[in-house]
Amino acid sequence: MSEHDVKSAVLRANERFYQAFTRGDFTTMRDVWAEHAELTCLHPGSSLLHGQREVLGAWQQILTAPAPVALRCHDPQVQVHGDVAIVTCYEGNAGQAPHLAATNIFLLENERWRMVHHQAGPLAQARPAPPTTRSGSSMN
Amino acid sequence: MSEHDVKSAVLRANERFYQAFTRGDFTTMRDVWAEHAELTCLHPGSSLLHGQREVLGAWQQILTAPAPVALRCHDPQVQVHGDVAIVTCYEGNAGQAPHLAATNIFLLENERWRMVHHQAGPLAQARPAPPTTRSGSSMN
Repeated sequence: MSEHDVKSAVLRANERFYQAFTRGDFTTMRDVWAEHAELTCLHPGSSLLHGQREVLGAWQQILTAPAPVALRCHDPQVQVHGDVAIVTCYEGNAGQAPHLAATNIFLLENERWRMVHHQAGPLAQARPAPPTTRSGSSMN
Repeated sequence: MSEHDVKSAVLRANERFYQAFTRGDFTTMRDVWAEHAELTCLHPGSSLLHGQREVLGAWQQILTAPAPVALRCHDPQVQVHGDVAIVTCYEGNAGQAPHLAATNIFLLENERWRMVHHQAGPLAQARPAPPTTRSGSSMN
């Protein structure tokens, strides 16, 4: 598989994470995360969540909240190192300028890119509003 | 090499990153980061730095500032996936409660664990002050 194809596959996995988020779809979110590997997650402002139970439990709470957050991914950048891929991107509510920066780490588990770690933290200044409100798909 | 030895080697690389930070030692900081791999960095509140020139240029500015920051690492947790290791930890100024959460990613490059990505972001509430002001070295 070419480097371009690998990065495209990683970006699709990353996109699926934000789709699950935006749709409040916990079934997909659970599937986005790795099944066998150790999971960790640092939500903005929060202490470390460690392990399936803590990480997925928090996502279940977030995604079943009465007002789900339509969080979009902007300008994802991918680095691939063998079976591990690092995605950095910005996050913003639909139609608004991105206000968070994120690191998403994926592991190739049984030939699928599955998330093993997520950290998001606030930007001091929101990024300029993107030209479209669709999720980004650039690859550098 | 046992899993324990691998994690110890990763933690030493992580510790060296914080020593370089605390000592304002740019030569060591430059050596902590990978030589050949793509580098990315998300400082608290800041936009993505991408590539050797941007990432190391920012570190040179930070480390040569008149008042260097004695930043300590607390409670590092390590996940190893082949040649890539993910360290999550808290960061705090010497003698103070940790006020940041961080993701540090290391790549085994020419048999040395070298940093390829760092993100740090603020905690909403500072963590309880650690029992000692020494850098942590726990391994889970």
